[in-house]
Amino acid sequence: MKGYVFHGPGQSAWEEVPDPEIREPGDVIVRVDAVTICGTDLHILKGDVPEVRPGTVLGHEAVGEVVETGADVRTVRPGDRVLVSCVTACGRCRFCREGVYGQCRGGGGWILGHLVDGTQAEYVRVPFADLSVYPLPGALADEDAVLLADIFPTAYEVGVLNGRVRPGDTVVVVGAGPVGLAAIATAQLFGPERVVAVDLAASRLQAAKEFGADAVADASEGPEQLVEDLTGELGADVVIEAVGLPETFELCTRVVRPGGHVANVGVHGAPATLHLEDLWIKDVTITTGLVDTHSTPTLLRMAAAGRLPTRGLVSHTFPLDQMQEAYDVFAGAAETGALKVVLGVPQHEVVPVHPTAV
Amino acid sequence: MKGYVFHGPGQSAWEEVPDPEIREPGDVIVRVDAVTICGTDLHILKGDVPEVRPGTVLGHEAVGEVVETGADVRTVRPGDRVLVSCVTACGRCRFCREGVYGQCRGGGGWILGHLVDGTQAEYVRVPFADLSVYPLPGALADEDAVLLADIFPTAYEVGVLNGRVRPGDTVVVVGAGPVGLAAIATAQLFGPERVVAVDLAASRLQAAKEFGADAVADASEGPEQLVEDLTGELGADVVIEAVGLPETFELCTRVVRPGGHVANVGVHGAPATLHLEDLWIKDVTITTGLVDTHSTPTLLRMAAAGRLPTRGLVSHTFPLDQMQEAYDVFAGAAETGALKVVLGVPQHEVVPVHPTAV
Repeated sequence: MKGYVFHGPGQSAWEEVPDPEIREPGDVIVRVDAVTICGTDLHILKGDVPEVRPGTVLGHEAVGEVVETGADVRTVRPGDRVLVSCVTACGRCRFCREGVYGQCRGGGGWILGHLVDGTQAEYVRVPFADLSVYPLPGALADEDAVLLADIFPTAYEVGVLNGRVRPGDTVVVVGAGPVGLAAIATAQLFGPERVVAVDLAASRLQAAKEFGADAVADASEGPEQLVEDLTGELGADVVIEAVGLPETFELCTRVVRPGGHVANVGVHGAPATLHLEDLWIKDVTITTGLVDTHSTPTLLRMAAAGRLPTRGLVSHTFPLDQMQEAYDVFAGAAETGALKVVLGVPQHEVVPVHPTAV
Repeated sequence: MKGYVFHGPGQSAWEEVPDPEIREPGDVIVRVDAVTICGTDLHILKGDVPEVRPGTVLGHEAVGEVVETGADVRTVRPGDRVLVSCVTACGRCRFCREGVYGQCRGGGGWILGHLVDGTQAEYVRVPFADLSVYPLPGALADEDAVLLADIFPTAYEVGVLNGRVRPGDTVVVVGAGPVGLAAIATAQLFGPERVVAVDLAASRLQAAKEFGADAVADASEGPEQLVEDLTGELGADVVIEAVGLPETFELCTRVVRPGGHVANVGVHGAPATLHLEDLWIKDVTITTGLVDTHSTPTLLRMAAAGRLPTRGLVSHTFPLDQMQEAYDVFAGAAETGALKVVLGVPQHEVVPVHPTAV
């Protein structure tokens, strides 16, 4: 079969790789019908995630059909249409027992396209299938469902839930890429007073408005002042970092109010400066996290009911074998305006960004 | 009267200052019977807390007798023996209404010895007295009670409660000075599996053992290995930073487990490096904070019942007019072995460190 293989920083190709096979009784093999590229994949290509070995097939988000199951698999069978989640879970370790699947110590966690071959291929082996793939409601198109493999649960759990958004809050989302937009959308479920989006790209700020942001700020023009003006100089209750750069993280710590929360969602490849000389006295809570996907079943129900603006995030679609072109469009988002690119579904040109529903 | 006046970084003196007077109807004047020096005072003298204006009387911890009350004061009257807390509270602002007195926006918070004249003097004016001084149980000696003005509530609230210590946890306390020792003592209230103390000074590690630490590690000898060995390579559930230096903060982020908490208590004068390239994926929660003193009434009851090892923290006592000598002994702790120095109570030589009770 074909897969998209990482060969070290800056080197990757869509090429022939061995077909995946069942190795453990909990495995399934899924035929990939829809797959996406994540900002994390770009971090891997930059060399920010050094534990990814050359030779690994990338990708950790997919929708497809189960074609083979190991002997122990109980919840799906061949022919089932499933979501392949970015996080797999052994279900037995200390962390899985606490629902912290992202930190699974039993061989799961974020392994697809990271420690084992991933979903950017024609077929993928998914370990621990009972806790790692989700049968899909018929009402949900592949192109919508695939966004629940990572970005919606990540934005919701690591951004909105870790940030403890509450009614009446001022929420600032730094970075209005796909995950930032999903955070803007899901933050609204908690009735904040306002959501402020910060980005450098006018097109992304426009998308942020369409996803429900009440105010937007160009990151290059001092968003600190806007947040001060909106909050009576106090600062934001919750700030969600959805970029992964030292400067955006540091911006978050400047705009958070005393007693507020900074929820880091971005994948970072370099240290940031933590200004403890200002922050030590401010009662600030900073969280980092990998998604656990404990919210995935809930988000699937909401998406099937039209309550998540999944469709609005997909800017480009490609056939599966145009993986490199899709990477080029996604990595060049500043020029192409790409949000989320989806491969393997009926293709269309750039879709205007209009959330289906909030 | 006499008071200890800050004249800019590195400059301070015990000298004649004007007697304090009632300025607002919520004020009281307290005659200082016992007062201490805080690590924060040393940070002020170093210039780490630039908002302290030259001319300010330092000090934010005291026990004394109310000698005058403003017209609105309801909870104490002249002759009452009271604890003067490091945090005063207007009781009316948004933060006070949430119990977050340390962030009071109504003129309180940490103001004594910071924004207004403090307690290292013969008399002190305490604003918002109804929420800022605490009548003392008769059973509690001045020398014990004064430790509840700051270090016990700080260690407990900002370290143990913010760090969310739970039964069975491995708790690492970095820095076994007075606040670190108070954190070691109060962490044990939550039934942790073990408390590990880290410091550079053998005398402080010995004190840590006497305060209940189950293991100690010399900070210069790689405490990471000890924590790994004790926790099956996982790391500590809770790490409490009680020093205030970039390197000690960074150590905390190296020894915390995935999903663990780093509670910063230290007063910092410089930024630290936050290794987000390692931490982004680890589900780590980092908190900073100023004490709110919401726990002070509870801690006073516990201390009066002999359940807090207050006495073991006092290494030296001095008459009030030997303030400079007391500062020298406290600042030279590496040589003098000083823990907490108390002024104004019956004096004695160095007391061996033996907690009264845990």
